Amino acid sequence: MNILNGRERVIISGVTPQIEGGRFPAKRAIGESLTVAADIFTDGHDEIAASILLKQTDQQHWTEFPMVFLVNDRWQVTLPLEKTGLHEFQVIGWIDHFTSWKKGLVKKYDANQDVSVELQIGSDMLSHALTLADEQTKNNIEHWIEQIGLAPDIESAISIALGNEIAAVMRSLREKDLISKSPDIYKIEVERKKAGFSTWYELFPRSASTEPGRHGNFQDVKKLLPGIAKMGFDTLYFPPIHPIGEQKRKGKNNSLTPDDEDPGSPWAIGNRLGGHKAIHPELGTIEDFVELVDAAKDMNIEIAMDIAYQCAPDHPYVKEHPQWFKWRPDGTVQYAENPPKKYEDILPFNFETEDWPNLWRELKSVIDYWIEKGVRIFRIDNPHTKSFAFWEWMIGEVRQKYPEVIFLAEAFTRPRVMEKLAKSGFNQSYSYFTWRNSKWEFEQYLTELTKTDLQYYFRPNFWPNTPDILPHHLVEGGENAHIMRLILAATMSSNYGLYGPVYEYGVNTPHPGKEEYTDNEKYEIKHWNWERYSRTREIITLVNHIRKENPALQTTWNIDFTQTNNDQVICYSKTDAETSNSLIIAVNLDAFNTQGAHIRVPLERFGMPYDSSYTVKDMLSGEKYHWQGEYNFIQLNPYDMPAHIFKIEKTNQN
Amino acid sequence: MNILNGRERVIISGVTPQIEGGRFPAKRAIGESLTVAADIFTDGHDEIAASILLKQTDQQHWTEFPMVFLVNDRWQVTLPLEKTGLHEFQVIGWIDHFTSWKKGLVKKYDANQDVSVELQIGSDMLSHALTLADEQTKNNIEHWIEQIGLAPDIESAISIALGNEIAAVMRSLREKDLISKSPDIYKIEVERKKAGFSTWYELFPRSASTEPGRHGNFQDVKKLLPGIAKMGFDTLYFPPIHPIGEQKRKGKNNSLTPDDEDPGSPWAIGNRLGGHKAIHPELGTIEDFVELVDAAKDMNIEIAMDIAYQCAPDHPYVKEHPQWFKWRPDGTVQYAENPPKKYEDILPFNFETEDWPNLWRELKSVIDYWIEKGVRIFRIDNPHTKSFAFWEWMIGEVRQKYPEVIFLAEAFTRPRVMEKLAKSGFNQSYSYFTWRNSKWEFEQYLTELTKTDLQYYFRPNFWPNTPDILPHHLVEGGENAHIMRLILAATMSSNYGLYGPVYEYGVNTPHPGKEEYTDNEKYEIKHWNWERYSRTREIITLVNHIRKENPALQTTWNIDFTQTNNDQVICYSKTDAETSNSLIIAVNLDAFNTQGAHIRVPLERFGMPYDSSYTVKDMLSGEKYHWQGEYNFIQLNPYDMPAHIFKIEKTNQN
Repeated sequence: MNILNGRERVIISGVTPQIEGGRFPAKRAIGESLTVAADIFTDGHDEIAASILLKQTDQQHWTEFPMVFLVNDRWQVTLPLEKTGLHEFQVIGWIDHFTSWKKGLVKKYDANQDVSVELQIGSDMLSHALTLADEQTKNNIEHWIEQIGLAPDIESAISIALGNEIAAVMRSLREKDLISKSPDIYKIEVERKKAGFSTWYELFPRSASTEPGRHGNFQDVKKLLPGIAKMGFDTLYFPPIHPIGEQKRKGKNNSLTPDDEDPGSPWAIGNRLGGHKAIHPELGTIEDFVELVDAAKDMNIEIAMDIAYQCAPDHPYVKEHPQWFKWRPDGTVQYAENPPKKYEDILPFNFETEDWPNLWRELKSVIDYWIEKGVRIFRIDNPHTKSFAFWEWMIGEVRQKYPEVIFLAEAFTRPRVMEKLAKSGFNQSYSYFTWRNSKWEFEQYLTELTKTDLQYYFRPNFWPNTPDILPHHLVEGGENAHIMRLILAATMSSNYGLYGPVYEYGVNTPHPGKEEYTDNEKYEIKHWNWERYSRTREIITLVNHIRKENPALQTTWNIDFTQTNNDQVICYSKTDAETSNSLIIAVNLDAFNTQGAHIRVPLERFGMPYDSSYTVKDMLSGEKYHWQGEYNFIQLNPYDMPAHIFKIEKTNQN
Repeated sequence: MNILNGRERVIISGVTPQIEGGRFPAKRAIGESLTVAADIFTDGHDEIAASILLKQTDQQHWTEFPMVFLVNDRWQVTLPLEKTGLHEFQVIGWIDHFTSWKKGLVKKYDANQDVSVELQIGSDMLSHALTLADEQTKNNIEHWIEQIGLAPDIESAISIALGNEIAAVMRSLREKDLISKSPDIYKIEVERKKAGFSTWYELFPRSASTEPGRHGNFQDVKKLLPGIAKMGFDTLYFPPIHPIGEQKRKGKNNSLTPDDEDPGSPWAIGNRLGGHKAIHPELGTIEDFVELVDAAKDMNIEIAMDIAYQCAPDHPYVKEHPQWFKWRPDGTVQYAENPPKKYEDILPFNFETEDWPNLWRELKSVIDYWIEKGVRIFRIDNPHTKSFAFWEWMIGEVRQKYPEVIFLAEAFTRPRVMEKLAKSGFNQSYSYFTWRNSKWEFEQYLTELTKTDLQYYFRPNFWPNTPDILPHHLVEGGENAHIMRLILAATMSSNYGLYGPVYEYGVNTPHPGKEEYTDNEKYEIKHWNWERYSRTREIITLVNHIRKENPALQTTWNIDFTQTNNDQVICYSKTDAETSNSLIIAVNLDAFNTQGAHIRVPLERFGMPYDSSYTVKDMLSGEKYHWQGEYNFIQLNPYDMPAHIFKIEKTNQN
């Protein structure tokens, strides 16, 4: 009989969160709550008790959090997560004989049964507990046994036995060898607040020069920082800043025949001047870069770097480490392709190389290099074309030393692949938001993201546009659509970003037949008048301010859709229990026409009676409305403002 | 870097079936198909391939079954399961470089690109495969390389490379060290056909005497066998047949004051004459029992025994093994109770006894004893009041030696507990069928049972009644309800049973205030006129015959509900692909009134066009109807026959 202890009777299963049976950690940012739950039960009718044991992975001491019974054998507890880094937890459960006995005692007493033998059983339990207790506790227990023995009547004896102090002592003195444990230990990655709440702005530093004809540089970017900070962004993300390949360089609009002055795509990384640890000379020096990182920090802006693990044909790696590439029989290196499409300016690494340990180490050293220069946020280009095992190892290693580092996965691909990248360690992921349009689509997608297991490991970052993607609705809907999509991204997801300044200025001419900008900044240098008025920028500024003021907008998982009687009007609530911050957001999805709708205010979520009178304040317009009950009418003119972001102001006179 | 092989690029996850990550086996009976599926994908654009490796757990050799791509990174294959006993499988996947190369080659050729280097790459792949091949295969490969080299033009070279034989060889010669494996090995318990298809009849042997006043015995039961076989039952289940406790014996209607001649409840097991391995003397000898088992076998009926692991106060165990019981301070053994209710005639075992290994061994020896006497089916009484760890061990041990043994869990309790018993090894489980009444309830419950993970481990057995349960609808609906519930049980679930002959004769007087029979056979001996005509019995006989003739009724997982426009008429299809056996079953849930409905025939499930003309034959009435298209009208008079069981007879002239 190869069973260790057949006396363990409590069953623990269905633990959530668990990602692939505990193989990958669940993720939560500081400030977000995490509820752990499990199915916990035993045979027969005995009472049970259960706890979570939690610790940081690199520490020894487990802290115990008692679980409470929810319904249908489900138990749960919400864990406080106060330190960043990897944690682990286990669920334990045991038969609570003392509570079983107390309940039986009371029921028998209420049914007028003789309970004298029961009281003796209880005293015996206390006596047995003496064998498990320390000196101080022993004294207490002996005192209780004596009190029960001396009690003048049954009622007094029972009331002593039902005391809270006895209950706490008996809980702590449970028999260690009868405790069941969950089949696995599960992991939680606790990240800094910014992993869960960040506001990104993407720009090409080489387009930062206000002087026409001059290549922009880090000094130019520094001058733009106040404007970016004023708009309310806290993360400034640059496409790759490394030397750009000169061989097979692409010209304007992805042309195969560039002019001499064409700057090439920043994603074609590396030339005779260096690779992933070098800076394109026209942008400035490494000192300029570090100075910019510091200057940004002073304005509460972090610089996010783009890491694209791929090489231009003249990247130094090709000569130094030929074994990291796939060579063809004609003596050339295999370029990226998706037959019949060719990307001759890009050489992918061969992750099946026998020399993979050195390749992995070198790629990680790129991250380490920029961490040393002060960068803590990396947006990873096309991670789905590099091996998953590499990401899991690399991100794990980096975050073990620097738990404050944030990785964003730029993968627009199939669901299982995007999920796998998130499981492998990416803290944030680009999402399908960009292509969701109708109310039904948004409700389905956000429900999938926030109410399924995805909520535990896949943290979306919503982008209305990127240099690669100009979606049709921005082309067709113009400025109104830009504003509407901005508000959706910024209020549905606590992490969002946009690629500017094309966004603020509503640049939206597509490359014919493609879902892409024409005269794309990827292949040419632009010059912008950053001073020009933009209605979109005004609203971005306002919305980002509202995000900072309202904790309910600082996490993604708390969204709940509510009913409207117009498919062009989407409505959802977001609440933060701790600060009682309760919002109702309604957005007109029609970029051209005023739409009205009756929306249902989910008063039950705000802890308000159904016939409440209350005030809602639209933080976009500043207007207040006095409402009563669940259903209220709104009307949104997209040329004025396509949304309401209502804050519920509860009144005292309900 | 503690990673074994960073070159493995294929990811395998989301394997189904897997019960708690492979901790428990999925179950399938011989004759049922099992589809194994997994999410399998890699980074980038390479083609992949995947297989299932399957073997019997106690054997060495793995058999490989190639998986096919389904959709959205999901791959699957249906496994043939031909031998009973525990099996295990693992999923493997690898990058299929040769197929990637072929696809690229064709695309490039179609795009008029130069493919001469590509052809050289292909030949290099074949050359590399030489290093992995045996002599015979080497010759073939060398031949192909030569043919490609000598091909008169590109087209010929490509068509050689695309050959099926090359593909098969290159698949088998994959590089072993680049194969990814699923994170776990998963188990499948293959059971004999009867685990999946059985028809149970429960009777009290002591009531088998046709002579009023005489205690029935096994000889009397033997005389009833032809009638039971004629009704179409293949499993004859007896309540416990052991000596009945004399101490604290219960009288008629569970009275605490029995008469001297009251026989007691068969579930109060054990007295001075013996316990779980003895036979109540008035039923006969062990030889009589074995003779009955054999006689039943001759009529294709198996005897199922009731195992109730509990003791009457005078069971020999109490004196022989006092350590297996819980003793109270007053020197008595703790009887079963659910305060304030007391069951003084029943002493439960204490599964927390320090002597648990001996208790477990003794309890298992009870099963072993009856197996030796020829019994292979055990209905376990109240398994949810004994420790789950015991069941997992005991059933595992027994089935390892006797994989043909079937255990039915008699647990009417909370969902998680019933599920856990099934995971722990029970082959069949009593279900909530008994309390499902409305169309919505049936659809919800059957969908949960057959379309969620429950289908892999929880096999329901549907009982319209038991000696413990006379549900309200049988009381209110009388004979019509008995017939309707019988047809529902027998056509929804391939395992069903009923407690007779009360069922055939429509005995339905409830004990006041309880969901139970009055003058319950549990506490008294009955005498039945087994010859008396019963409409219910006639229909039972017919339905059981239909079950035997139609493979679609011999598995539970194939039920699909279809639309009707009347909530009193439920309609579902069952199909068996292998034999093209397609049924449509419609049942009137109203026991009192004729109900009509338009039902939708799911022609797509039967592989028929939407405008098909076809014939349906009602196997209950023998009548045929000629139908066209999806929607057809039916009408059911419960006083005549509350259901249709249509067999689809496809015509050739569609």
